[in-house]
Order: sequence, then C-alpha cells, then structure tokens
Amino acid sequence: MNFLEERIVKDGAVREGNILKVDSFLNNQLDIKLFNEIGREFKRRFAGLPVTKIMTIEASGIAIAAITAQYFNVPVLFAKKSKTVNLDGDLLTTTVDSFTHKTTNTVTISKKFISPDDHVLLLDDFLACGNAMLGLTDLVHKAGASVTGIAIAIEKGFQDGGRILREKGYKLESLAIVDDMDPQTGKITFRHQD
Amino acid sequence: MNFLEERIVKDGAVREGNILKVDSFLNNQLDIKLFNEIGREFKRRFAGLPVTKIMTIEASGIAIAAITAQYFNVPVLFAKKSKTVNLDGDLLTTTVDSFTHKTTNTVTISKKFISPDDHVLLLDDFLACGNAMLGLTDLVHKAGASVTGIAIAIEKGFQDGGRILREKGYKLESLAIVDDMDPQTGKITFRHQD
Repeated sequence: MNFLEERIVKDGAVREGNILKVDSFLNNQLDIKLFNEIGREFKRRFAGLPVTKIMTIEASGIAIAAITAQYFNVPVLFAKKSKTVNLDGDLLTTTVDSFTHKTTNTVTISKKFISPDDHVLLLDDFLACGNAMLGLTDLVHKAGASVTGIAIAIEKGFQDGGRILREKGYKLESLAIVDDMDPQTGKITFRHQD
Repeated sequence: MNFLEERIVKDGAVREGNILKVDSFLNNQLDIKLFNEIGREFKRRFAGLPVTKIMTIEASGIAIAAITAQYFNVPVLFAKKSKTVNLDGDLLTTTVDSFTHKTTNTVTISKKFISPDDHVLLLDDFLACGNAMLGLTDLVHKAGASVTGIAIAIEKGFQDGGRILREKGYKLESLAIVDDMDPQTGKITFRHQD
C-alpha cells in the first residue's frame, strides 16, 4: 500500500451508500502534510509533461490543488458551481450532476483565465461517476486548451468515472483506487498499481 | 504599500456596488506564490500565539488557509455552507448572511474536529460585513474552544466587519485594509498600517 492507501485504511470509514468517509484528513479537516505528499506524488506521475494551470472544481479539491501547484509552479483555477454577482465578463459554462449532493450544477470559469496555449492538469479529491471531471474537460476544450491529464486522490474503481475517462484517452492518475468496500466489515480493497 | 496592496493596485479592479475584483490572483485564479507570501506574513503577525487549527469557510478562503497552514504546521478545518449527505454525526451549526451571494446559509462543522483544547486561527480572503467571521467565532465558542485571532487578506475598511470584530476584542490582522475605492477612477485608498 502507498501512503494514501495506508491513511485511508487507518482513518477512513466505509458507510452505506458507497460512501467512503475521509473527512478527518482529506475533505473537511485537511492534513496539509499529507497534501504535500500527494502533491509530490502527482508531480512524479506527471513529470516531464506540460502543465501551465491546475484546474479543479469548488470546493473540496481546492486545497489539494493549491498545495500540489507548489510542485508544478503554476497557478490554480477553480470552476465555480454557480454564477456569482462577482463573476462578470465572458464565461465558459457546462453542467455537472453531483452524486454527493443529488443536484445538477451549472459550472463556470472565466474565459480570461484559460487560453488555447494552456496545458491543464485537472485535479480533484474524489472520482466516482466522473461527471465533475467530464465537465472540466468540456470547459478546457471550449477554451481551446488541452488537457494534460487528470490527477485524483481517491478513485472509486467500482463506479464508471475512471473507465470512461481512460477510454476517452485521458492520462488519469489516481493515488488510491478503491475497487471494493464493505460497510459491514469496513474492509477496503485497493486496485494494485505499479 | 506592502506586497498585497501592491498586487491589488496592479491587478485588481474596482466595480460598482463595492466590489473589488481580485479574481485573477486571489479568489478564482490563485497565485500560489502570493499565497505563500500571505501565509508567511500571517505567521509573523501571529508569532508566539497558540494556534492548533486554522479554520475557514468554503470556498474561496480554503486555498489561502491550506498554504498558510504550512507555516503554522497545523490542520485546516473548513465550515460547510450546507449539510451534505456525507457529513454525519454531531454538527455544530450557525447561520451566515452572504453579502456576495445575497443569501443566508446554514454553516456547519463536525464536533469531532474541534475540542475545548483547540486554539483556532480564523482565516478568510475577504472581510466585509463580518458575518462569515462572526459565524465562525460562534462555531468555535459552541465547541468550547478559543479564538486566537482572525487572519484576513483584504478587509473592506468602509464596511463594519472590522470595527465589530475589533470591538469584540478579537486580534484581527488584515494584510490590506481598503478604506476607500472609486469605481469611476479605479483609485484604491489603503489604511496605513505599521
């Protein structure tokens, strides 16, 4: 097991409804030392590839994106889940269904922050159905920029997001892929990765 | 002018309705090098004081909190703006009116992440009416913990939040305090700080 898989086993919990609770270190209380390990590992996995921006979606991926950006030496962009009064000018827009919140969100990014010259690394804490990442790839393509890859902390390998994104040809790197988890026993089975 | 005031003058813009747009470096596209300068300066201003957790509210303060936490060597907590299906267990709850979004949010944090032993540094990108920070102080007090101080990147000094929080006795450190800004001329006047 790698450092993240070990931490999931130690401090995570499996709940009914395909929920993996990692809120004590990953997405509510944030272990910033762990995030630095995650950032270093993403840099290793995408070494040598062009990355000019790291892009995520509010809210829980933002902190991992910020820490990871230090290893790539690039700015972070985050797509917003609703149009706010402070976002003026030309917007790129897509829609994303949320598994967690059972809602559909309009997701936007300002055109001025992303150009055809950009090579974008998409990043999030979780990958499940893949809707959020598909929405971000749509925004990047609408901007005429290119997707260098997709960096995920925890992939739910028993849901379709990973398969869909890999079949589309994206370089998807998930630090932990959960292939099975049992709310009765708490047992978590990770996919073997080299 | 300090580094943040200089950046606001260089890349910020004043809009009608008391809006200071800093989305190109602070709260939509994130300049992580700048955030490191902000984090170092917060550490300097709160040097020697007990800080066991940095607490913010989703979403735009999360990245600054994550980077700043590296200088304090503590975890970050963020209060959530609505109850999600992933947050179970005992919650501390308060309500916050949003100036930007013209809404009232229920704001929650899990009791398990904050104890009476905690010394909490509250942090956000903006301070205006002070409602978000008053909500966070309420959550900290409900947990029986103590507020070490409040760290703000940009305070709108012409609104009441800063005065209210200082009158309540909180150590409030704002790296840039905008006392006046003119949407016609774009001129921004900062409060002098030693």
